[in-house]
Amino acid sequence: MPKIEADSFILVYRDKRRKWLVRVSETPKLHTHLGILDCTSLVGKDYGTRVLTTLNDELVILKPTLEDIVMKFARKTQVIYPKDIGMIIVKCGIHSGSRVFEAGTGSGAATAAMAYAAAPEGQVYSYDLSAEFQAGARRNLERFGLAKNVTLKNQDAKAGIEERDLDAALIDMGDPWELVKPVREALAPSAMLAAICPTMNQAERLVQTLHDEGFVATETLELIARNIEARPGMTRPSMFMVAHTAYLVFGRKLL
Amino acid sequence: MPKIEADSFILVYRDKRRKWLVRVSETPKLHTHLGILDCTSLVGKDYGTRVLTTLNDELVILKPTLEDIVMKFARKTQVIYPKDIGMIIVKCGIHSGSRVFEAGTGSGAATAAMAYAAAPEGQVYSYDLSAEFQAGARRNLERFGLAKNVTLKNQDAKAGIEERDLDAALIDMGDPWELVKPVREALAPSAMLAAICPTMNQAERLVQTLHDEGFVATETLELIARNIEARPGMTRPSMFMVAHTAYLVFGRKLL
Amino acid sequence: MPKIEADSFILVYRDKRRKWLVRVSETPKLHTHLGILDCTSLVGKDYGTRVLTTLNDELVILKPTLEDIVMKFARKTQVIYPKDIGMIIVKCGIHSGSRVFEAGTGSGAATAAMAYAAAPEGQVYSYDLSAEFQAGARRNLERFGLAKNVTLKNQDAKAGIEERDLDAALIDMGDPWELVKPVREALAPSAMLAAICPTMNQAERLVQTLHDEGFVATETLELIARNIEARPGMTRPSMFMVAHTAYLVFGRKLL
Amino acid sequence: MPKIEADSFILVYRDKRRKWLVRVSETPKLHTHLGILDCTSLVGKDYGTRVLTTLNDELVILKPTLEDIVMKFARKTQVIYPKDIGMIIVKCGIHSGSRVFEAGTGSGAATAAMAYAAAPEGQVYSYDLSAEFQAGARRNLERFGLAKNVTLKNQDAKAGIEERDLDAALIDMGDPWELVKPVREALAPSAMLAAICPTMNQAERLVQTLHDEGFVATETLELIARNIEARPGMTRPSMFMVAHTAYLVFGRKLL
Repeated sequence: MPKIEADSFILVYRDKRRKWLVRVSETPKLHTHLGILDCTSLVGKDYGTRVLTTLNDELVILKPTLEDIVMKFARKTQVIYPKDIGMIIVKCGIHSGSRVFEAGTGSGAATAAMAYAAAPEGQVYSYDLSAEFQAGARRNLERFGLAKNVTLKNQDAKAGIEERDLDAALIDMGDPWELVKPVREALAPSAMLAAICPTMNQAERLVQTLHDEGFVATETLELIARNIEARPGMTRPSMFMVAHTAYLVFGRKLL
Repeated sequence: MPKIEADSFILVYRDKRRKWLVRVSETPKLHTHLGILDCTSLVGKDYGTRVLTTLNDELVILKPTLEDIVMKFARKTQVIYPKDIGMIIVKCGIHSGSRVFEAGTGSGAATAAMAYAAAPEGQVYSYDLSAEFQAGARRNLERFGLAKNVTLKNQDAKAGIEERDLDAALIDMGDPWELVKPVREALAPSAMLAAICPTMNQAERLVQTLHDEGFVATETLELIARNIEARPGMTRPSMFMVAHTAYLVFGRKLL
Repeated sequence: MPKIEADSFILVYRDKRRKWLVRVSETPKLHTHLGILDCTSLVGKDYGTRVLTTLNDELVILKPTLEDIVMKFARKTQVIYPKDIGMIIVKCGIHSGSRVFEAGTGSGAATAAMAYAAAPEGQVYSYDLSAEFQAGARRNLERFGLAKNVTLKNQDAKAGIEERDLDAALIDMGDPWELVKPVREALAPSAMLAAICPTMNQAERLVQTLHDEGFVATETLELIARNIEARPGMTRPSMFMVAHTAYLVFGRKLL
Repeated sequence: MPKIEADSFILVYRDKRRKWLVRVSETPKLHTHLGILDCTSLVGKDYGTRVLTTLNDELVILKPTLEDIVMKFARKTQVIYPKDIGMIIVKCGIHSGSRVFEAGTGSGAATAAMAYAAAPEGQVYSYDLSAEFQAGARRNLERFGLAKNVTLKNQDAKAGIEERDLDAALIDMGDPWELVKPVREALAPSAMLAAICPTMNQAERLVQTLHDEGFVATETLELIARNIEARPGMTRPSMFMVAHTAYLVFGRKLL
């Protein structure tokens, strides 16, 4: 049962909307509108502890999950949602030892989730032309201990992918069809290509390109996540929701 | 690049509705309405190959993915869908080394998916009172090489769970609230409990029990998977779909 | 309280899947797998009556609703769903006295629903190039007493619409953008154009044309109808559903 | 082609979020952040006109639709959505001449929509215990010319409904099951009862009561409205949406 250490990340939790992901060493005192929390005093304690702020408000200290971490990555780029990355990981079969291509790196959120699934043996090769995005992603991956399972490449995957015989590929770019040929060369036969397409038009054109370039078993789907307010005698779906993140496109490489 | 071996499983694929998951050694000749496929002749070839049946019909030989395998498990029990198990794996953070509780084993489909994510170091402890279900699950897990990451226990988890400090727990039973106390004892503090609840009433009662028993950050959601027919100039959602599988309930253990 | 007459339509109802819409005079004996029902014996009785078949099976005699009737229209063409036609009627404000354009007539199902809403004073002008469709629609409209509120025109609306100052227009054709100009001439200023578009591409192109041709307040939406199985302690959405019927596009004519 | 009059309501429209429903006589000058609009100058003009504000910003003058009007009603009570009221009107077959029961009146939005569908011959009998709600509803119904098709009753429908042989009934109250018996007495045989139930638990209990009290053909459903952003080459569902309004429950009275 690991204890909280000076170097640990903690999730300070009050409710769905009021929660803070901080590192004890970086945030010795967490100032919130509910009062100040002395994070340093948590060192040596268990996760799952209840604590009081200076205003006597009760907070809970949780160990950040992959989701807690990944949802913090996105800033300048679009977020990748747990529902989508979970589906991609299961459909691509990413697990310990998997070697996975990714373009683009973006915030590094999907990179992190795939690296987490591929650890300790696997590797995510993530290409992005933006040095700025990659610097941000690198910082996040290092902070959360996922950097060793990621190779960041600040280069244009359209010009060629250096890896071969990869187990899976994820494309998260505006023109995914431009990546189909290089991804085809990089994938092992029968391996899965996945893509994140915000618009119908992207999905339509990508599927067409996949058929033209010798991919089979193509599939396009969207996952809609609906929150439910489960309360005794008053259970109902939440009134508002994220209606759309992206279409997910899949296809498998033929020889 | 692994070749097809006599012992390999292959997915013989024609389209979404016509596909067969077989083992070469067990099905030397695959008889389909499209003709007979000589599976033995595939040994030594690459996955991703196109082959002809005796009726000159083209089929494709793919390497079965986790999804292909898991969707074959269910027979007498309800199937667990990739969208749901993907979300559970991501939200629970199941990855190499994770130690996970499960009740009940059922067909072993969720067991297999979690074992796949937890391999090579982790372990799924799966309880089920039905010896018949466990025998079926064991057979499937062994066939697909996932048995070493699963401990099947033919006993009643309500009477107590023997493991401690587990990283996550999945409950897939009709009365999940009856498992909350034993799961609480088995989980590490801050660890995630997940449950699969087909009905609103189950979700409602489970969430109430979770609050009563010291779980926080509870969340109930459903994932709706919508297939899209992406065709040039004619893209639209599929006309029919699986409208509901289950509500997913999550909560984290407080000390 | 109207009684059942020889000329009446009745809905013989057992459950959602087993129900028959018949006219007493045309079906004096209704043969079902639950036995024979003597419909003639119902004359003079109230709707809402329980009756027995020759096999002693209980059935219920209901007065057909608009939905019961309209869902019977479609045969060779796509059905229009109550959810969609309800939204169209409300958004277009079709009510007694409304004068409405429609293309094409198809099965006459939407025609019937709009005529029902526009009766007794209004009129639906429905254009279709197919004489066969219009003959089928006419037969149905006459049978159900809705013909007097419909003017069927076996002509090409693209070549021009003869009416002017209409209150609303519904386009249900594969190339709705081709109708925008003639519909614009036929509509009163500020009036609503509605269209039923099965594919995203149709919706996209139609909206573009609407903008080009001086329509404002364009809106595209889809309605997803989800059935719920409400049973004590076991309430849940139905497992399967119609996932997609069509996108609905709306726009209002500017001067 | 009716012109704008001093007494007319107009919808001043800029886009989905910036629109104002006003009456010329009550708002001679409309002050907006886009400038001032001289509404009086519109008298005698056609709807569908483009006009300029004092800041030279272009606005469009539309004739308010039923939806524009009804969405303005709600203030202290929950809004009824066009998708839901459209479905209710179609399923209940409310049209010119229909006599309809309603409880409660609430903001009068559903009352207005049903009165609009039942006009000019029909009548909505709307019960509500709250004199305040009914005063608000009456004001709105009068303003929009729908009062003559509505009878507001400031009394408790649970204590009895005075009408008989009604064509349909709509229940929009927290405890709809309490209304089933009086509604049953008020409805014509075979007529439809509809109810708006925000929670699963309400739907579940209501359906049970309907079965106990001799209603058949019960049906529970929810309509999910999803907005689509249809833009050339970039079509996709909107990112956020109203995820839930209410479950709709229907049932038909047996003798």
